[in-house]
Amino acid sequence: MSQNISSFVRHGKKIVAIGRNYAEHIKELSNTAPKEPFFFLKPTTSYLPSGGRVELPRGIICHHEVELGLVIGKGGRDISQAHVAEHIAGYALAVDLTARNLQDQVKSKGLPWSAAKGFDTFTPIGPFIPKSLIDDPHDLKLWLKVNGAFKQNGTTSDMIFRIPRLIEHISSIMALEEGDLVLTGTPSGVGPLVAGDQVECGLSALSFGVVDREGGYQFQALG
Amino acid sequence: MSQNISSFVRHGKKIVAIGRNYAEHIKELSNTAPKEPFFFLKPTTSYLPSGGRVELPRGIICHHEVELGLVIGKGGRDISQAHVAEHIAGYALAVDLTARNLQDQVKSKGLPWSAAKGFDTFTPIGPFIPKSLIDDPHDLKLWLKVNGAFKQNGTTSDMIFRIPRLIEHISSIMALEEGDLVLTGTPSGVGPLVAGDQVECGLSALSFGVVDREGGYQFQALG
Ligand SMILES: [Mg+2]
Ligand SMILES: [Mg+2]
Ligand SMILES: [Mg+2]
Repeated sequence: MSQNISSFVRHGKKIVAIGRNYAEHIKELSNTAPKEPFFFLKPTTSYLPSGGRVELPRGIICHHEVELGLVIGKGGRDISQAHVAEHIAGYALAVDLTARNLQDQVKSKGLPWSAAKGFDTFTPIGPFIPKSLIDDPHDLKLWLKVNGAFKQNGTTSDMIFRIPRLIEHISSIMALEEGDLVLTGTPSGVGPLVAGDQVECGLSALSFGVVDREGGYQFQALG
Repeated sequence: MSQNISSFVRHGKKIVAIGRNYAEHIKELSNTAPKEPFFFLKPTTSYLPSGGRVELPRGIICHHEVELGLVIGKGGRDISQAHVAEHIAGYALAVDLTARNLQDQVKSKGLPWSAAKGFDTFTPIGPFIPKSLIDDPHDLKLWLKVNGAFKQNGTTSDMIFRIPRLIEHISSIMALEEGDLVLTGTPSGVGPLVAGDQVECGLSALSFGVVDREGGYQFQALG
């Protein structure tokens, strides 16, 4: 795979997804904020490339959670925050689809989340974005529209635990490998999808401010 | 990988582990028996080949759970019980090591099990056993000794949900792929490991009864 990290969807082995990393989303689900990051695993069989169709299992209430994904370029264990940047090859926009009614049921029983998060087609995934194209991953707008209407519209600047801390924490428990994807949590606005819905998501990877230049060139009206 | 399924440890993408599949083990942990199989994911980064050393994370109480592993040879989705045999390439003895104190904590909060089950070195794994060498996977003795003393000594005939049902259930939620490993649950006798312990596990893959043949050859004492 080292030849082509952009094929992480085919060759990567795991998806590590962070829970409760945006304060407004924690509130909307009446959860409590974690003292340290926590995560769950999704299988790579849940990937759905852009343009595909999410299949809703019978009886399942499926919620969308739009998230920034980190694509691991160099594996490692016990990665310190100072070295995290070397291990990230780039980014991908992803949706952490969640069988919310099943998740509620297993949570109340203390059971694992793996089925609720791991159904086939439950990780729609956008194209690989090399890190050179993203100036600051903590200053990206993330949005998701259902049938043309905004449902989620957040910014990665609202993450409770930032990327270096997430990678440090995960890799202190399990090694990360080239091609793994880390999902960094979802902003508020999660909600159900039903058959027939059309979903669009975006990442505003480009943003800038405007100032008057001091000194230098001066336009002169001629004639 | 199709050339060599025995390298599933290097090339497989996921480990799907069944919980609470032996009645005596459910009792010893004061759990309730599930109405349908349930499972969690372990990352393949947790594999530890035989002869290696399990590393206990600081503060973690690590329990051994010896289990029969199924190695998937042919992937599939919605595999019916009648077709399960075609999808299994063979078996491997495995230990589903569990950070029991962390698991107890996350269970009480309804949080995912992924960290508690997924630490590096937390899935010691034996060699690949082609299915042709195992007559009946539901009639195998599974045992685990710590420092020479038996701690677990069960039989796969005590599984609550048998292999066809497990594969049918998992593959109705997430596709299985060549090289994936399915752990089928642990018999009773789980308990803690501490630094310095030496662990041995076994699978009695060969067993037979004895009867008197009716008719045929008759030995005659000569001389
Ligand atoms: Mg995996
Ligand atoms: Mg999420
Ligand atoms: Mg187990």
